[in-house]
Amino acid sequence: MNLLYDARIDGALTHVDQAEVLRRLRAAMPDLDLLHSLEDLRPYECDGLSAYRVVPLLVALPVRLDQVQALLRVCHALRVPVVARGAGTGLSGGALPLEQGVLLVMARFNRILEVNPAGRFARVQPGVRNLAISQAAAPHGLYYAPDPSSQIACSIGGNVAENAGGVHCLKYGLTVHNLLKVEVMTIEGDCMTLGSDALDAPGFDLLALFTGSEGLLGIVTEVTVKLLPLPQVARVLLASFGTVEQAGRAVADIISAGIIPAGLEMMDNLSIRAAEDFIHAGYPVEAAAILLCELDGVESDVHEDCQRVEAVLRAAGATQVRLARDAAERARFWAGRKNAFPAVGRLSPDYYCMDGTIPRRALPGVLDAIAALSREHGLRVANVFHAGDGNMHPLILFDANQPGELARAEALGSRILELCVAVGGSITGEHGVGREKINQMCVQFNGDELTLFHAVKQAFDAHGLLNPGKNVPTLHRCAEFGAMHVHHGQLPFPDLERF
Amino acid sequence: MNLLYDARIDGALTHVDQAEVLRRLRAAMPDLDLLHSLEDLRPYECDGLSAYRVVPLLVALPVRLDQVQALLRVCHALRVPVVARGAGTGLSGGALPLEQGVLLVMARFNRILEVNPAGRFARVQPGVRNLAISQAAAPHGLYYAPDPSSQIACSIGGNVAENAGGVHCLKYGLTVHNLLKVEVMTIEGDCMTLGSDALDAPGFDLLALFTGSEGLLGIVTEVTVKLLPLPQVARVLLASFGTVEQAGRAVADIISAGIIPAGLEMMDNLSIRAAEDFIHAGYPVEAAAILLCELDGVESDVHEDCQRVEAVLRAAGATQVRLARDAAERARFWAGRKNAFPAVGRLSPDYYCMDGTIPRRALPGVLDAIAALSREHGLRVANVFHAGDGNMHPLILFDANQPGELARAEALGSRILELCVAVGGSITGEHGVGREKINQMCVQFNGDELTLFHAVKQAFDAHGLLNPGKNVPTLHRCAEFGAMHVHHGQLPFPDLERF
Repeated sequence: MNLLYDARIDGALTHVDQAEVLRRLRAAMPDLDLLHSLEDLRPYECDGLSAYRVVPLLVALPVRLDQVQALLRVCHALRVPVVARGAGTGLSGGALPLEQGVLLVMARFNRILEVNPAGRFARVQPGVRNLAISQAAAPHGLYYAPDPSSQIACSIGGNVAENAGGVHCLKYGLTVHNLLKVEVMTIEGDCMTLGSDALDAPGFDLLALFTGSEGLLGIVTEVTVKLLPLPQVARVLLASFGTVEQAGRAVADIISAGIIPAGLEMMDNLSIRAAEDFIHAGYPVEAAAILLCELDGVESDVHEDCQRVEAVLRAAGATQVRLARDAAERARFWAGRKNAFPAVGRLSPDYYCMDGTIPRRALPGVLDAIAALSREHGLRVANVFHAGDGNMHPLILFDANQPGELARAEALGSRILELCVAVGGSITGEHGVGREKINQMCVQFNGDELTLFHAVKQAFDAHGLLNPGKNVPTLHRCAEFGAMHVHHGQLPFPDLERF
Repeated sequence: MNLLYDARIDGALTHVDQAEVLRRLRAAMPDLDLLHSLEDLRPYECDGLSAYRVVPLLVALPVRLDQVQALLRVCHALRVPVVARGAGTGLSGGALPLEQGVLLVMARFNRILEVNPAGRFARVQPGVRNLAISQAAAPHGLYYAPDPSSQIACSIGGNVAENAGGVHCLKYGLTVHNLLKVEVMTIEGDCMTLGSDALDAPGFDLLALFTGSEGLLGIVTEVTVKLLPLPQVARVLLASFGTVEQAGRAVADIISAGIIPAGLEMMDNLSIRAAEDFIHAGYPVEAAAILLCELDGVESDVHEDCQRVEAVLRAAGATQVRLARDAAERARFWAGRKNAFPAVGRLSPDYYCMDGTIPRRALPGVLDAIAALSREHGLRVANVFHAGDGNMHPLILFDANQPGELARAEALGSRILELCVAVGGSITGEHGVGREKINQMCVQFNGDELTLFHAVKQAFDAHGLLNPGKNVPTLHRCAEFGAMHVHHGQLPFPDLERF
């Protein structure tokens, strides 16, 4: 298979000359904004995963598609890698620059091209912020459903690249479920339309393939998203539990009852205390775990569903169930959850946010296993979940100034991700693989599967120039990492039942 | 690009020798059932699209995976094409055999391996019938949502290959939205797991890519489907309209009101009369169009939604709205719709069932344009729709015994599909491209896009051995067909507004 990638991230390509690339780009497109001095490049050295930092060769800030096209064609001709970046809020280092590569910043493509209420879609440029779409659609009573916590800042192009989720994706789906069509540009500068204005398209489903491909297959140049009607009402219930198991079982019971909450979130005691100290959300600080369950829709349906959920919660052993009295209390309940990461951050000099997905039914067993791993590594772990869809965000607390703690945190993180794979889950829910979890991909997939990923990558980008070193590891890298592929619970977690 | 395909379907490979292939297969796997006499092969000469017939080189009927693997490895070594077949109910000729190829019949893999109520999934072999999954899940109060009209006979492996839909896919999604995981075997006999037991998987979304790939990328060997709780109640409303436009607008109004019906179907006058004559469903034969709107869920929600839908229907100009009084009347209302194809078949010696998808908002304009095309070609067209998701099934009535009528029907069908593309839709909703619509793919996609499809195909199947000549046309074929690619309404339908 194509081994070009690793050569690049390992810095083996010493022939890339900044001055030469700059000269060629300027010749091809004189009015393209290019940054090249170290002080100008420095602000782009990382995305939301600031533990990894690389100063790029050059930064390009195009405002027109012909500029993007010219840049891609020059880079393709010179065999210079290209890393695309939206708002730079990603949490897995997907937009981490390469020393030998151009960083293509799409942030200036920030126009909303069309909001079509009859067709219930919006057509936007890739640099448009996630929340700006819902704001533009609001006068028509519509909104764009996926809502990552970073939605005030993150861009829709980045959302497509990472297949972003959010607290409402249990009911409304991930980014891929809320797209109609994406215009992309290949590394050769060709334009493609993936998807269609209708709900299905013939041929291979390249729109789904492209969504979440983390910048390895092409550059997003335009996005047509589906818009949904704003729900008439939304209500949120807060339930307290004496044990984490009970809370986990309540999640399964709600789903089994045929109810699909708009959001179903779980926090453990450490997260509850941290959030309460920080936000004063009104959380019960003695509870072992809480569930937040939001229901939305038309008034009478929501009223009825709230009663059903409350009954399920009480039957599962909830010690207390509170319905937010009004919009202000509902906002407070959510503020606690949405600020859980910074709140936990106050407990410890540093924290490492994990992102794994497990089958919902494995929740109680996995929580026990994380507690055991936490003790074994001597580091506290706070647990915050999108419980409804099995997406966990364990937060590992550590102090980077204590010798060895960072390494111990990373080791614990790896064990947690391997645990996710062992119970039939995955090493990422919504944050992506990026640079961060490239080694864990060797755990998730076997050699044949990785070979197939590379073959698909080559179909789009024969020379491996787009975002090399992210998302899909080379077999060589996996061999060096120790080729820990597990399948169906082969990893040594002897206490963990296979669900 | 790889031009191997067309060489094969055009019969250029004259070196494939039945006796030699038979000898090699028997040597590799003595207990594999193989059919080779003309009388044994004849029953397999077509699938549900009986207008196309080809007697295969050989038919293989494996019962174990090692037999499938041995067969694929021999065919790969000999460069003999392989066409997979499930129940043979497909309507686009996706399982049409090749004279020079082996037909791999997966029907004997018909075991339900696991029904897991806690995990809400079922793990089944590919030859299991769609309806059999819901029957096995029923004791647990669960079912499998996608329900193609052929669900009593069609197999889940074929559903995955075609990304099958059904009347309930507006609310519950297509096959791809109801899968957790698929085990596949490549043409080289390697086993792959696509997807995971969790709701998301890292890396490229090969599960979505594979679903609907029509047998071109690999052989489905096991399917894990999601199960949903059976709805407490389901009610159906029947609304009559004086014009087709009003009915079309009512569809948009229901969706705009934020209601997602379990099914939302439309029939025009010709279909209504045909169904009523055949089934006595109680349809209003004077109506220009009817809508059937099914709502399901918990009792109180459904009751409320029925009232809201009725108000929307009346506001849109419905002359009559009837709620099915009981389960028997509900079944009758649906029987008319589900038997619309055979009912229309009684009006004419032959009919040709089309399958296109359009943006919902384009419905009224497209219906007008179809009426004009119908007059122009001198052939009647009955219209039956999955209106809620814009999936149309125009039925073209003709008499194959009248010289020229078949050609005229095909010409009219092509114009209708091109019309779908011109308004931003697609040439297939749920029946697939197969052999039938291979030329229309040249209309739907441009050369760059088709080249990308071929590159993806090559990533899985470098020699183009799996189901060649289906789904993705070669550029050579498109050039011969006349390269009619249209994009964004470039086709000459001057009266048709771009929506």
